[in-house]
Amino acid sequence: MNQTILNVKNKIRNIADFPKEGIIFRDITTALKDPETLHQIIDYLSERFKDERIDFVAGIESRGFILGMPIAYKLNAGFVPVRKPRKLPAATYSESYELEYGSDTLEVHQDAMGKGSRVLIADDLLATGGTAEAACKLVKKTGAELIGIVFLIELCGLNGRDKLKGENVISMLEY
Amino acid sequence: MNQTILNVKNKIRNIADFPKEGIIFRDITTALKDPETLHQIIDYLSERFKDERIDFVAGIESRGFILGMPIAYKLNAGFVPVRKPRKLPAATYSESYELEYGSDTLEVHQDAMGKGSRVLIADDLLATGGTAEAACKLVKKTGAELIGIVFLIELCGLNGRDKLKGENVISMLEY
Repeated sequence: MNQTILNVKNKIRNIADFPKEGIIFRDITTALKDPETLHQIIDYLSERFKDERIDFVAGIESRGFILGMPIAYKLNAGFVPVRKPRKLPAATYSESYELEYGSDTLEVHQDAMGKGSRVLIADDLLATGGTAEAACKLVKKTGAELIGIVFLIELCGLNGRDKLKGENVISMLEY
Repeated sequence: MNQTILNVKNKIRNIADFPKEGIIFRDITTALKDPETLHQIIDYLSERFKDERIDFVAGIESRGFILGMPIAYKLNAGFVPVRKPRKLPAATYSESYELEYGSDTLEVHQDAMGKGSRVLIADDLLATGGTAEAACKLVKKTGAELIGIVFLIELCGLNGRDKLKGENVISMLEY
């Protein structure tokens, strides 16, 4: 593991039994509040796509907004929010996905990304992959081309990558 | 109005009767998806605080995350999320505020900002000011010093500034 990744991982706070018993929550707020670590995260995730002519970075609500906007700024791309239902004011595409209990839905503006535009999806965490898979489908519904998906953290034991087969998936920290 | 502000304002989409009849919703997604406009917004809002030695930018969930992170990146500050209840995993301070119907609560980690640190709050919209006022109180509860508050949009008719008297309030676009 290189020094940058080690530093960022050391700044993540591990909290037992949140949001419920038996879960170790990986708290990214302790990493983001340190300016050097914040730069290391954004620079690492942007670097891999700097020659990919990304048109839009799509951030998944709400922690994907935190990573997606500065990556868009750095890549000189536009930013597109992928939101929970009834938040976006114009016509949307929507995509539902299964949760442990029940289901959830994501939406994107129909006119957010043009046909053939090159899109990078950003989120904080790859767990079971359901959310990211729904975001991928949404991007493709708009006619855009999905170039990659970046996560700050990947929980490898949950096999989220299986749902994202064939996509270019980059995660900075693995647990 | 200078050319930058005029350009950004022209990129905001006005949507009638959202989220309910009689409201004109100022949709910032059409501005954020344009890379040049995204840069103009972040550069404008950061510029005013570049000599203020900001330690932390506190972004209010969830559209304040969109603006707060790239401003933190640019100012070489840390980022602190101000969140809705039960999202932050460690010990928090919380502050409730009135809405048109009912009330809402914001939280911040107790250890997010050190005593005496210099903090800038970021959000997309200043309307009645209740949310921003609660965020100001939270920052002060941590012992930090509030240096300013930046908004992309201010709805001047709702007098939100009255709730933020004595603070350095900067908004880019006025309606």
